[in-house]
Amino acid sequence: MSRILRVNMTDLKAKFEEVPQKYNLLGGRGLTSTIVADEVPPTCHPLGPSNKLVLAPGLVTGTTAPSSGRLSVGGKSPLTGGIKEANAGGLAGQKLARLGIKAIIVEGQPKDDKLYLLRVDRNGAKLSSARGIAGRGMYEVDRLLGERYPGAGIIGIGPAGEMRMAMAGVSVNDPENRPGRYAGRGGLGAVMGAKGLKAIIVDDTGGPGVEVRNPGMLRTEARKLADALTTHAVTGTALPTYGTSVLINIMNEAGGLPTRNFSSGRFEGASKVSGEMINELATKVRKGEGRVGHACHPGCVIRCSNIFPNPDGTHHVSCMEYESVWALGPDCGIDNLDDIADLVWLCNDIGVDTIEAGATLAVAMEAGLARFGDGAGAIKLLKEVGKGSPLGHIIGGGAAFTGKAFGVTRVPTVKGQAMPAYEPRAVKGIGVTYATSVMGADHTSGYTIAPEILSVGGKADPFDVNKAELSRAFQYTTAFIDSTGYCLFIAFAILDIASGFDGMYGTVNGVFGTSLTADDVVKIGEQIVKTERRFNQLAGLGAASDRIPEFMKLEKLPPHNTVWDVPDAELDKVHA
Amino acid sequence: MSRILRVNMTDLKAKFEEVPQKYNLLGGRGLTSTIVADEVPPTCHPLGPSNKLVLAPGLVTGTTAPSSGRLSVGGKSPLTGGIKEANAGGLAGQKLARLGIKAIIVEGQPKDDKLYLLRVDRNGAKLSSARGIAGRGMYEVDRLLGERYPGAGIIGIGPAGEMRMAMAGVSVNDPENRPGRYAGRGGLGAVMGAKGLKAIIVDDTGGPGVEVRNPGMLRTEARKLADALTTHAVTGTALPTYGTSVLINIMNEAGGLPTRNFSSGRFEGASKVSGEMINELATKVRKGEGRVGHACHPGCVIRCSNIFPNPDGTHHVSCMEYESVWALGPDCGIDNLDDIADLVWLCNDIGVDTIEAGATLAVAMEAGLARFGDGAGAIKLLKEVGKGSPLGHIIGGGAAFTGKAFGVTRVPTVKGQAMPAYEPRAVKGIGVTYATSVMGADHTSGYTIAPEILSVGGKADPFDVNKAELSRAFQYTTAFIDSTGYCLFIAFAILDIASGFDGMYGTVNGVFGTSLTADDVVKIGEQIVKTERRFNQLAGLGAASDRIPEFMKLEKLPPHNTVWDVPDAELDKVHA
Repeated sequence: MSRILRVNMTDLKAKFEEVPQKYNLLGGRGLTSTIVADEVPPTCHPLGPSNKLVLAPGLVTGTTAPSSGRLSVGGKSPLTGGIKEANAGGLAGQKLARLGIKAIIVEGQPKDDKLYLLRVDRNGAKLSSARGIAGRGMYEVDRLLGERYPGAGIIGIGPAGEMRMAMAGVSVNDPENRPGRYAGRGGLGAVMGAKGLKAIIVDDTGGPGVEVRNPGMLRTEARKLADALTTHAVTGTALPTYGTSVLINIMNEAGGLPTRNFSSGRFEGASKVSGEMINELATKVRKGEGRVGHACHPGCVIRCSNIFPNPDGTHHVSCMEYESVWALGPDCGIDNLDDIADLVWLCNDIGVDTIEAGATLAVAMEAGLARFGDGAGAIKLLKEVGKGSPLGHIIGGGAAFTGKAFGVTRVPTVKGQAMPAYEPRAVKGIGVTYATSVMGADHTSGYTIAPEILSVGGKADPFDVNKAELSRAFQYTTAFIDSTGYCLFIAFAILDIASGFDGMYGTVNGVFGTSLTADDVVKIGEQIVKTERRFNQLAGLGAASDRIPEFMKLEKLPPHNTVWDVPDAELDKVHA
Repeated sequence: MSRILRVNMTDLKAKFEEVPQKYNLLGGRGLTSTIVADEVPPTCHPLGPSNKLVLAPGLVTGTTAPSSGRLSVGGKSPLTGGIKEANAGGLAGQKLARLGIKAIIVEGQPKDDKLYLLRVDRNGAKLSSARGIAGRGMYEVDRLLGERYPGAGIIGIGPAGEMRMAMAGVSVNDPENRPGRYAGRGGLGAVMGAKGLKAIIVDDTGGPGVEVRNPGMLRTEARKLADALTTHAVTGTALPTYGTSVLINIMNEAGGLPTRNFSSGRFEGASKVSGEMINELATKVRKGEGRVGHACHPGCVIRCSNIFPNPDGTHHVSCMEYESVWALGPDCGIDNLDDIADLVWLCNDIGVDTIEAGATLAVAMEAGLARFGDGAGAIKLLKEVGKGSPLGHIIGGGAAFTGKAFGVTRVPTVKGQAMPAYEPRAVKGIGVTYATSVMGADHTSGYTIAPEILSVGGKADPFDVNKAELSRAFQYTTAFIDSTGYCLFIAFAILDIASGFDGMYGTVNGVFGTSLTADDVVKIGEQIVKTERRFNQLAGLGAASDRIPEFMKLEKLPPHNTVWDVPDAELDKVHA
């Protein structure tokens, strides 16, 4: 029987609770969002005592289901002011699940304004002082805690989270015990910081494991999914070979790679920072510790991660994935992979979302704080965040915040959250998702890029503005997948291979002894999105927040010279 | 026949237009808000090309009606994200009216990102480069432009407005040609800066004057109002003698003087910064250039302004009014009037709202950037704003922005705008106004302090939570008064003296030949508020924005040890 661990930071007490009946078939995002909606007052201050940080592994996380190690983190977002779920790979999700922990709810706030560690193992949960760990960057945190607790899953925040910056993420360590697997978006690291929690150590040694109602069914269905993943060209070949950065050349070709703070859709230096180039350097030119096909957690069959080497072959950073490379590269006009790797490393260490960080640096460049393309300048600006200087507190507040600080109007955000690596003016469907997602601008909440650019799951004209239905369908299905613990990248395969889709929800049936159908996937996803939207509406995020920024309606984007022209009515149809 | 002056900053052209019929009986706030609602897309970026800056003198401004020199400034606020009207005394309102200018609409944005001057006189309107004026503080701007255009009204922005900071106000010069009469609230100085407009010079020499339909009626009604103003204890005696700072001791006694960032309602140093002390220093101890009973524009019979002298009797600053003294004094724990005068002078020069500036310094102190009570520290922080350092850009963004930068949760704002000098936990009605005003936290939009504390216009228990009706009545009537051009301080007299109230709208009848009644005052005010609320709703400010910050519900305020306990339902009743 799995349980909920409730950690009260005011009393510094951790206690286990039974899982309420209504949460039984919820996991991951479905569970974090439902708990947040049930327990957090929508108008509370995100950094105050009434907000809660909820962590939950997915429904099949910790089982043998492939690529299912995601850990969801939820709360009211300091960045968007709305509900937030962000999820990450790494070790902790599986270990929590195997300890029989359905969710951790962190609430209250320490009276002494100090930082604490939470250790969870088969014997229970215990809070202790974070002395010696507080104030450290995440690489050191993982190293120090890894020495104390070898093999443990470590969930932690860097200095940015401690300083309650709105771009702070929640790190999860990877199999090499390094940070970089981030529940990055929406500032949940700041919520963890405001709770006075520096890190959670998860040791599943001797844990009960995940209870599986129908092991035979789990095995069969997991096999169907694994077959789809290894067969499909994207998940079976492209991602393990080139990583997600395979998208750099593709999006650049499509004219939808946001460049120099969303002032162009094409970057002249794209090929220098592409997945192909990363592969070349990691496996042929530099080699050494360089690797592609790296898994961020045990049991991943996609292995889209990589280890990017220094010129001398030593480990530089893991991983150089598409969003990070784009945000800290093309969006800042930077075409030097070593500079980008430095920036990714700094983000991982300081503990900030790479997307928000890159988009913010680009806005800072627009404000004149460095010139586009200046890698050293970007590194210097990002270090200010770690130092907590006034400038660091501006940049640490994210792209919308930095734009406001310097009166910049070209600020690519929705609900205060920076847009990821797809230009809405060149790919309308993803813009519809950015605008209408409960999460703020977020590609993962309804990845219409699949049909619009990749011809996965059908084909859709990227310039067609009638995308409400397409985005809605993706948003609902995604909300379910985000609840399973599966990495969203399984979507590439299961959109094209029906047996893979069946295996996805079939494994849930195997674990819970349920008989969910493909229809239920959509229905459950819809329910989750509606719960989240209700929270947002009560928090004050109404129709006016479901909009693309004005500059995209006024400025034509090269090379297609298109503006954002999806009517507001189309946006309002998504959740009507 | 009065006209509208439309200034297009993209084409750098100014042209006069006929006043549309429907605007004929609108002036001041009623006119700025209606034009903004008609012409500005609610979701536009406040600093982008689609926002407009609208300036309009009141309905009776420029006539012989007493204390009626207010100039309204409107637009979409960079601070609140909603519609904004702020008004100021000084010379420009009357002069614009006497040139027959009903409103100036400033639109577009210069392509060259440069700053311009607009000169308006009986021959027309002309734009020219602001070379030699750009970048200067408002004291120098007024001096330099006053040398070029002696006796002119000067509307301008300081460095804060040029830097598009959200606490930037719009200055109007006073009879001594100094800044300090600010349409301060809501960041309209940043909008003016984003329009590329450094200053507007208004020379009414040889102008046609205000057309008066019924001069006899105007004379009679103006006399009724003037009699009420000179008779009433507040407007006839207290304000000319002690200035508005007479409220320091009164609010301190009531336990409603927000102290050290709204952590107490009583300040041990109140008597040192009171209106009585200002009077003592200005008229008895220091004398010299010190003055009370100073008028901010010709024709004011209240004369609540003062000139505060340095210890040696030389001019220090004008004026030391209640909100400024409180914000930069007690709210920062500062009890030294000379330090406060320095801070007021800096606000006037840099061009920022004193309320927002003081509240922001208090939040910065809460964040540890200076200690409460440290006048020199506060001065140093405020100077950063003028310098435009990163810290200055944080503080220049206002209290909510600064709170967000440093993760502070005790931030006394509504809709992003700082609360003025009345504690909602000690005076519930004003809290209802703060929460539900279209303007963000704003005492002037529904001054229930009159009955709650001053026994003016009846009596109301400050702790009674049923204040929806009271606040609504004040909000409607105020919207009308803000449209007339009368200083809101006439309200003290006309709430108690019926003939004064009759004189208020009677003068409007005199000017326009209309036959408005007391009922029409409320109806027209209601119409204005509804127009403004419609804009706000479309801009995304719904019910969740009509709330008092969470910390006031959680923290008891000394000395009464009360929390904010007005139910949300009571707030929602105001505009239901």
